[in-house]
Amino acid sequence: MGRYVFGVDIGGTTVKLGLFGEEGVLLEQWEIPTVKENGGASILPNVAESVKGKMEERHIREEDVAGIGVGAPGAVDEEGTLVGGAVNIGWKPFNIPEALGAYINVPIKAANDANAAAYGELWQGGGKGSANMVAVTLGTGVGGGIVVNGSLLNGATGAGGEIGHIHLVDGETESCGCGNRGCLEQYASATGIARLAERRLEKDEKPSLLRGRNLSAKSVFDAVKAGDEVAIEIAEQFGEYLGKGLAVVAAVVNPEVFVIGGGVSKAGEILLSFVEPAYKKYAFHQCRGARFALAELGNDAGIYGAAGLIILN
Amino acid sequence: MGRYVFGVDIGGTTVKLGLFGEEGVLLEQWEIPTVKENGGASILPNVAESVKGKMEERHIREEDVAGIGVGAPGAVDEEGTLVGGAVNIGWKPFNIPEALGAYINVPIKAANDANAAAYGELWQGGGKGSANMVAVTLGTGVGGGIVVNGSLLNGATGAGGEIGHIHLVDGETESCGCGNRGCLEQYASATGIARLAERRLEKDEKPSLLRGRNLSAKSVFDAVKAGDEVAIEIAEQFGEYLGKGLAVVAAVVNPEVFVIGGGVSKAGEILLSFVEPAYKKYAFHQCRGARFALAELGNDAGIYGAAGLIILN
Repeated sequence: MGRYVFGVDIGGTTVKLGLFGEEGVLLEQWEIPTVKENGGASILPNVAESVKGKMEERHIREEDVAGIGVGAPGAVDEEGTLVGGAVNIGWKPFNIPEALGAYINVPIKAANDANAAAYGELWQGGGKGSANMVAVTLGTGVGGGIVVNGSLLNGATGAGGEIGHIHLVDGETESCGCGNRGCLEQYASATGIARLAERRLEKDEKPSLLRGRNLSAKSVFDAVKAGDEVAIEIAEQFGEYLGKGLAVVAAVVNPEVFVIGGGVSKAGEILLSFVEPAYKKYAFHQCRGARFALAELGNDAGIYGAAGLIILN
Repeated sequence: MGRYVFGVDIGGTTVKLGLFGEEGVLLEQWEIPTVKENGGASILPNVAESVKGKMEERHIREEDVAGIGVGAPGAVDEEGTLVGGAVNIGWKPFNIPEALGAYINVPIKAANDANAAAYGELWQGGGKGSANMVAVTLGTGVGGGIVVNGSLLNGATGAGGEIGHIHLVDGETESCGCGNRGCLEQYASATGIARLAERRLEKDEKPSLLRGRNLSAKSVFDAVKAGDEVAIEIAEQFGEYLGKGLAVVAAVVNPEVFVIGGGVSKAGEILLSFVEPAYKKYAFHQCRGARFALAELGNDAGIYGAAGLIILN
């Protein structure tokens, strides 16, 4: 097996690339723009060219490359097929390893980008040392990546770990982006927290640092850190929703650790202090001991996880 | 690899045993009593003796046996350790393959009995041909067994697939057997259905075949088949709860098929007609296409799945 591995994380504006050496050490990382024109037809040729350029620069031969792992922004099945396409970058459904393999002759594997990021956190981040993990990404939405016995759970149609779309609340009047109503994402994402804050502030006139401020996950948790009572109520509500949702997830996959990442997680350890107690309240007793950790790799989780697809399998 | 496999399903009153031949054909099945005295200390010696007796009877040598698979009534981890013991049969935590291996020198694997039954349905029952399945057992409680990429999902502490303990209803006043309140099991098990029926009948005086009858899952579905309106309302409520719970499960593991078994499933296809519409209403769009099937192996699912632990791995 070759000594080098490339990890590729295809995003809506840039493609992140990483060159990994023995034992998974990140040697170098760089980016190229994601060219979305023509249905994203140049994205994979550009990736191949960039990888080949790096190989030439470093005098790496094809036989020294163990493989290329690719994270893509859509549902990807076990064979690396992007089953539903990837609307953000204009891709229709196709098999990624086959398509990229037309430009470069090394082993290739592909996974969903959120799942790849989860895998990165498992391998070298907040979930290190665990074989059963749930990674939770609290951003604009709520994403999830699930690792079972050391392998990514992709599911039958690549929708494994779509925990943001767990039905959590009956009688919700607003719709989630997915079309349903009452999804976890509507309460625990960055936008969900802003909405909880708005609803709480409208309820009464209790003074709060948040009044007249731009409501966001950041402003809420900053106010929590300043001891603001209304902000603490909002954070408790968020914790109740997310803790309850993760307790449901635990009754299904029984993870050893939950790794919490995404923009909202920048609030730090204080975030976990609102989620864990609610989790323990709703969790099945045998699942109650699951650990909670913050994600550690930030935006690099994707390239780590993509490389991990090659190195760990 | 040997040509024969034994599947062993350890229950509270009897141990079921099956001898399987090439390609997983069940050649013979029999039972021995589960001796619970002395903390169940004779159960495994009895199993070994029964297996050896059968080998002698059929002139099967040790080298002709590919292995023994064991389903046990408690949480079992990847290594076959009964992590929390098995209260029903008096067992404390120990490693099953090691303990049974002291009496008979063939490969041994163990799993939780509900998970083994799920694996049996995957292999030769309602989930045949699928690699991603959720088996749901609707009995006194609600059990689950999850298969991901063809492997059983045991979880970090053997509680993978405990879908009966998904928190589903806020504000429930009665407690579940697990100590929490509002678990799926409280609404979708045989006892749950009887309770839904009781609550519905108390609500008003609407005439129903169920009035004055012993309330059970069977009497409810018999009345549904007779066109009883109140019974249909109860079945719809049951379907709403179970469908919602399974939609949550689908957002986590995204199965290809749900296989519904257990005593309640004897109602037949009509049961699915109440569950599927509710499932589709709450499911994430990419999970909406999951199939629903009835379990096919009944009480034999456990020995099939136990044998499958050896044959399929």
